[in-house]
Amino acid sequence: MSNEFAHRMARKSIKLVDGSGNPVAGQEVQLNLTNHKFLFGASTFDAVEVANKSVDPDRLAFLEDKMEKFFDVFNSATLPFYWDRFEPKRGKPMTEELQNAAKWLKSRNVTLKGHPLVWHTLTAPWLLDMSNKEILKAQFDRIERDVTDFKGLIDMWDVINEVVIMPIFDKYDNGITRLSQELGRVGIIKEMFAKTREVNPNATLLLNDFNTSINYEILIDGCLNAGVPIDVIGIQSHQHQGYWGREKLEEILDRFSHFGLPIHFTENTLTSGHIMPPEIEDLNDYQIDDWPTTPEFEERQAKEVEEMYSILFKHPLVESITTWKFSDEGAWLGAPAGFLRKDNSPKPSYDVVKRLIKEDWHTNVTVRTDDKGMLTFEGFLGDYDLVCGDKSVSFTLEKESAQDQFTI
Amino acid sequence: MSNEFAHRMARKSIKLVDGSGNPVAGQEVQLNLTNHKFLFGASTFDAVEVANKSVDPDRLAFLEDKMEKFFDVFNSATLPFYWDRFEPKRGKPMTEELQNAAKWLKSRNVTLKGHPLVWHTLTAPWLLDMSNKEILKAQFDRIERDVTDFKGLIDMWDVINEVVIMPIFDKYDNGITRLSQELGRVGIIKEMFAKTREVNPNATLLLNDFNTSINYEILIDGCLNAGVPIDVIGIQSHQHQGYWGREKLEEILDRFSHFGLPIHFTENTLTSGHIMPPEIEDLNDYQIDDWPTTPEFEERQAKEVEEMYSILFKHPLVESITTWKFSDEGAWLGAPAGFLRKDNSPKPSYDVVKRLIKEDWHTNVTVRTDDKGMLTFEGFLGDYDLVCGDKSVSFTLEKESAQDQFTI
Repeated sequence: MSNEFAHRMARKSIKLVDGSGNPVAGQEVQLNLTNHKFLFGASTFDAVEVANKSVDPDRLAFLEDKMEKFFDVFNSATLPFYWDRFEPKRGKPMTEELQNAAKWLKSRNVTLKGHPLVWHTLTAPWLLDMSNKEILKAQFDRIERDVTDFKGLIDMWDVINEVVIMPIFDKYDNGITRLSQELGRVGIIKEMFAKTREVNPNATLLLNDFNTSINYEILIDGCLNAGVPIDVIGIQSHQHQGYWGREKLEEILDRFSHFGLPIHFTENTLTSGHIMPPEIEDLNDYQIDDWPTTPEFEERQAKEVEEMYSILFKHPLVESITTWKFSDEGAWLGAPAGFLRKDNSPKPSYDVVKRLIKEDWHTNVTVRTDDKGMLTFEGFLGDYDLVCGDKSVSFTLEKESAQDQFTI
Repeated sequence: MSNEFAHRMARKSIKLVDGSGNPVAGQEVQLNLTNHKFLFGASTFDAVEVANKSVDPDRLAFLEDKMEKFFDVFNSATLPFYWDRFEPKRGKPMTEELQNAAKWLKSRNVTLKGHPLVWHTLTAPWLLDMSNKEILKAQFDRIERDVTDFKGLIDMWDVINEVVIMPIFDKYDNGITRLSQELGRVGIIKEMFAKTREVNPNATLLLNDFNTSINYEILIDGCLNAGVPIDVIGIQSHQHQGYWGREKLEEILDRFSHFGLPIHFTENTLTSGHIMPPEIEDLNDYQIDDWPTTPEFEERQAKEVEEMYSILFKHPLVESITTWKFSDEGAWLGAPAGFLRKDNSPKPSYDVVKRLIKEDWHTNVTVRTDDKGMLTFEGFLGDYDLVCGDKSVSFTLEKESAQDQFTI
């Protein structure tokens, strides 16, 4: 336990009494962190197939194995709500399939985020037949339906994705770019946040972008001054063209900290393969047949993951890190972007991130109660099991922790 | 008269009657544009010395000659309110000197703009001894004092200058950058516009920037959504590194037209010398002993001025073009940026701009009244003298012009 993580920890005093109210004095007590408050996540699109058992048994067993390796380390997950896939035919959304996935993940104690409610890429192609007024209504209806249908299962949403480029996106025509051109960047953000907030007032709402330049800073500044209820600043960090490194990472953290809002690293990629050439501007333009993971680059990935996760965990405003692809299988651009190889075997990066989360930043202490039944301990924030002999009690360690009394 | 300038013109019917109310029938009438509604301007910092006669007689005569060449062509001017020069010692502003300049220019029918109320460059150095709270108060006091003192003389202000770079400006410490870091970009703009609007509710308030990238677009978008009462988007166009050309100019006009606000080209530079190398990022870093004007480059400048002014005059949202340096004498960076050479001799660009404003885009027509005393004419918007024999009357031609009756 080091001071650099003091903001992630708290000290707490607990009084233990027995069923008759007498102090449990001089007893050995174990305090074990069962779930971090900090969100360590990955996108878990496979959960849809696993929860719905919609693939053949061999494939299902393979995906279940992958998901178990996920559950061994992580406590948060991003589920896919890309409109063109979620509702390929208008009026026939994949609500049930996604609800099954969400329920299963929730039963495994995973905190969920839906991604995204509004985005120009992978949006519904049938918007193209509509007027802007109709597109706006369809988008509002979609938010109203999906945020309602998942309330209690998913209370965290990437409301709108990649707005910096949205109105000037020119790869292909789409309904959301059209709408953003009419409403303006701040205008479309404002509308979508207002609607999402209205439908789920207690949800955590993110603005998310891959643009980490001054553009995104000014956009956030404008939104906040315009009263847009942004809860969290989402920063994508797909580093196919090489690890940003400490200096750039700290510079970005510094610039986006000025708003005083929590920051989530929503989509992190560090590959265990060769680096994409720097001249590629849109990562989607890099199409190669094979992008292998190699032992040498797996070591590099592990080192980069350790440094980056450590820098982010140290920063007081960062509350979540999501690695975008948990496994190389099916990764975006075919990149070896996962913590697992295509065959589900763990890379060194998996071991590193598991060690960080489950050992280095973990709390599992044994203390002894005094003659008044009191114990004091310090640990990482999150959910705990307190075990004393064959009795146990669960509680949550918060930053400002009052003294508690537990009966065991 | 061509259709491409239809938005700058109006058709008007006038009935002329004599002192007894009888139609002035069958008479020849001259209609002469005396002042364009469009603002063709330059910065006229020399007006301070001329109006205050604060230089020796030879120098005064030279500056008066320069100013007369200005009056021959232009109808708007920018006066300097750089805080470090306007109030070098706190509490001793150059109010009277500037008022004399403003009164003199106004007597010559010139529309004035003050530049700027807030800027990190050339701000008062004595702000550095203050806390941010004190800086904010001093800046508010400055706005309140100066906008009040010049009300009626100057009702157009560059409220705040170059905010995109303001909080990250790192060439030297200054009070305004500090303040912008605390308030944020939209925050400082909001405060300064609110204060200026409060002090002069009818003033025309500009946001002004040299940054024409997506940064400035997003900043404006944020400000407008946050309710900042921006009247005009100010765009600087110092083209020391070469004329932008039609394509870039039209692209910029297109992007900044989305807001539907009037656009002023507030600081235009096209030199009649060699082009500053493209690798210079901050124009201030280009320091050379001599930057001569040459006949060859003067021809190039004249062509560029003609094309650029024509493109801007054609665009319906552009309402003003200010050439930053009217003469090479004392021009920023020593650049041959003027319409006049250092000895006040006119360059070809002066003749071009004079021809455009005073001939090509001018209205001076002779019509004959019918037997009811009616005449109809079409002309560029602005102030007119109507002359009939030895009688004359003045009026303003507006876009939506009702029929008028004048008694002569």
